[in-house]
Amino acid sequence: MSTASGSAAGSGSRTLHFLVNVGGAGYHPAAWREPGAEPAGFVDPAHFVRVARVAERGLFDAVLLPDIPVQQPGIARGPAATLEPTLVSTVIAAGTERIGVIPTASTSLNHPYNLARRILSLDHASGGRAGWNAVTTFHPGAARNFGVEDLPERPERYRRAAEFVRVTTALWDSWEEGALLGDQEGARFADAAKVHAPGHRGEFFAVRGPLNVVRSPQGRPVLVQAGASGPGVAFAAAHAEVVYGSQLGLPGALRFTAELRRAAGEAGRDPSAIRVVPGLVPVVGSTEEEARRRFDALEARRHPDDEPLRAFAAWLGIPVEDIDPDAPLRPDQLRLPAGRIGPEGFFASLAAHAAESGLPVRELLAQFLGGHRVVAGTPEQIADHIETWWRRGAVDGFTIVPPVLHHDLPAFVEHVVPVLQKRGLYRTEYPGLTLRANLGLQIPPNTFAPAGPDGTRPLEAS
Amino acid sequence: MSTASGSAAGSGSRTLHFLVNVGGAGYHPAAWREPGAEPAGFVDPAHFVRVARVAERGLFDAVLLPDIPVQQPGIARGPAATLEPTLVSTVIAAGTERIGVIPTASTSLNHPYNLARRILSLDHASGGRAGWNAVTTFHPGAARNFGVEDLPERPERYRRAAEFVRVTTALWDSWEEGALLGDQEGARFADAAKVHAPGHRGEFFAVRGPLNVVRSPQGRPVLVQAGASGPGVAFAAAHAEVVYGSQLGLPGALRFTAELRRAAGEAGRDPSAIRVVPGLVPVVGSTEEEARRRFDALEARRHPDDEPLRAFAAWLGIPVEDIDPDAPLRPDQLRLPAGRIGPEGFFASLAAHAAESGLPVRELLAQFLGGHRVVAGTPEQIADHIETWWRRGAVDGFTIVPPVLHHDLPAFVEHVVPVLQKRGLYRTEYPGLTLRANLGLQIPPNTFAPAGPDGTRPLEAS
Repeated sequence: MSTASGSAAGSGSRTLHFLVNVGGAGYHPAAWREPGAEPAGFVDPAHFVRVARVAERGLFDAVLLPDIPVQQPGIARGPAATLEPTLVSTVIAAGTERIGVIPTASTSLNHPYNLARRILSLDHASGGRAGWNAVTTFHPGAARNFGVEDLPERPERYRRAAEFVRVTTALWDSWEEGALLGDQEGARFADAAKVHAPGHRGEFFAVRGPLNVVRSPQGRPVLVQAGASGPGVAFAAAHAEVVYGSQLGLPGALRFTAELRRAAGEAGRDPSAIRVVPGLVPVVGSTEEEARRRFDALEARRHPDDEPLRAFAAWLGIPVEDIDPDAPLRPDQLRLPAGRIGPEGFFASLAAHAAESGLPVRELLAQFLGGHRVVAGTPEQIADHIETWWRRGAVDGFTIVPPVLHHDLPAFVEHVVPVLQKRGLYRTEYPGLTLRANLGLQIPPNTFAPAGPDGTRPLEAS
Repeated sequence: MSTASGSAAGSGSRTLHFLVNVGGAGYHPAAWREPGAEPAGFVDPAHFVRVARVAERGLFDAVLLPDIPVQQPGIARGPAATLEPTLVSTVIAAGTERIGVIPTASTSLNHPYNLARRILSLDHASGGRAGWNAVTTFHPGAARNFGVEDLPERPERYRRAAEFVRVTTALWDSWEEGALLGDQEGARFADAAKVHAPGHRGEFFAVRGPLNVVRSPQGRPVLVQAGASGPGVAFAAAHAEVVYGSQLGLPGALRFTAELRRAAGEAGRDPSAIRVVPGLVPVVGSTEEEARRRFDALEARRHPDDEPLRAFAAWLGIPVEDIDPDAPLRPDQLRLPAGRIGPEGFFASLAAHAAESGLPVRELLAQFLGGHRVVAGTPEQIADHIETWWRRGAVDGFTIVPPVLHHDLPAFVEHVVPVLQKRGLYRTEYPGLTLRANLGLQIPPNTFAPAGPDGTRPLEAS
């Protein structure tokens, strides 16, 4: 596997894609306690720029900033406060040249006009490097920051999300290509006939428009989505251009991606124009043993209230006493508990992987961090994992979820990326100047523009 | 007047303050057509950074970004599209060192949790240089982008604004000083007992909190307000730390500021801790004649639908045929017309100045650009105007409103600022690292912190 042909990264052909998930000092709850970590880094713009520049050195497509607009509990134990992601993305864009920026923002707790404008402004501020990770938000505490006692059930949240995205796309397209004239001599700034008001009236929103921002160098921001529950897959198939999320095992990842592409095709989209990049927690060592020791040491530094088995039980929504670490999880433990708070898709991925792998909990835990797949090993072993999943068509790449940002991201970039490049699976320079160019996605035609001579229709028109 | 004593800019004493109003290519409708203007500059981050750096060279306190979240009409004639101001502020902060950034955002068309978080994030992203220009938004077109057919009347808008500001201030104070421990060894990230949830329930909002962002290097962002209508003054007296707006004549400015400080005192605030900086449109020439010619030439380049007298009539809300350019406005023309769309305070300032100066319309127009006072003359004449208003106590400084950003802002910084410095009225270096330090304002105590030993109470607590 380590001597695969060098053709895959060639121009126009399928290539690997990487995002990096950036939060706090890293994804591991004890990350902020590592030597070299700045506990207050989460409010320091320089911290985010530093991290993004490492990922840019690794030619990553984009930085993904997760978000829930609530002060999460557990602040006694670790950083759970976060600057607002569209602002942090702007900071990152100002400090980098080529890497994309993808803030997360909720379709349940924002208004389309404000958010559409902000994300498209970010696309301009970054020279066409912006995306939007659209989430529906499941956290009841977040709702109560917005005068809502309880968020609606998943189907309504996703209906609202779909309407939100349709309005947003239409707002982003308000200004047709060629609307901005800038004719100083003739005193014609714009062609008002090419500026369109979507005039939307739907179940959740009434938005007249037009948006007061022109299209961006990449047309419009890239739509990213993470949910992998039933309504989440339908939403992703209809709208998403990049799909993040959790995939713990290869069979589940193959099923998910096949289903997503099938549904996208049924929705009239080009199934190959979606980039599937589930989370991957890489722990690099010069030997597998060393990598495992590093992960174990991190796990050992968790707060006693949050030690691995206890945190895993809480994540699953079952009592820790019910878990036998030396046995596989029982089928009844792999059914979604009523009232569990958390992403359904993540749970489904774990349940499938636990059942299909038959691993005892102890070994399952060695592959698991907060819902994402841990791969601890040598650079070659991690590259093998990536290559296998990618060659099988289960993924287009991965969202790297560094357990400790300032350690594990540089380790991946310096040690794993060169192996993938040597195997011809990964690029050695950025292919273009925009996030769409990084991702190999086309500039979408304007919703308001007439169909092209070849009958091309806008992607999101419905 | 030109040889006043040099003591005024000394440490601790009263000094001049300048903001700069940055929109499009400048405040004049024909600004984008000037040689050297980039018609598409309004979507170019480099444009905003360039402008801010000029103002920073002039030691200005801050850049103020006006905003109405709607695609304004008249785009055929000039730029009326705008990137979202909190994002643009972040871009500016990343490209500057000392100047503050003050985005405008509506209390009628935002939710407190989202906006409080974004502005406080900007305060971190800028190292403590952020403010918030809180406006209630009067534009019906903006409302219709948010599913609202008509915005409520002024009193309700201001009740909502006051509640919005109270919630925002409380959210900004969620994390008490000392709450963030960052104790890596002891595994104590924060002292949860010092993180407070405002638990607000009011007429317009229910916001539980706490905010997931800690206080900033300047405590919290500076509250800026522009309205000068009756409810606007009451709101400013209760909350604002910087008051922007329109003052066309000195007597009106004196009355406004005296009334504002009186009301602030009655509200239990220190009246001297408010910076009053109305708009000023400087047009610099080597002679008064040259400056006047420059302004006239700009006015002559307006679109025919927007020529000065017609634009002035539209601004007043009266038919252009009713205006005799060679006579003063009649008293009946100085009463606010029903249904006029625009800031009431601006109208009141014009009405007072027209009545008190008795100027014929032609001469009034030479002092007027979009509601702000034009002063065209030599650097010394403009400095005289500034010094007079400031010595009389009518203002603490001005918000410079450059008719053409890339020409008139550098002209002010290079020619007027040195005159003011020579007169000892203006600083020669920044006094500190934060916007509060620029403005000479203290870090406000935390609303949730107990009163200090001297009995000091938080400013905004009620």
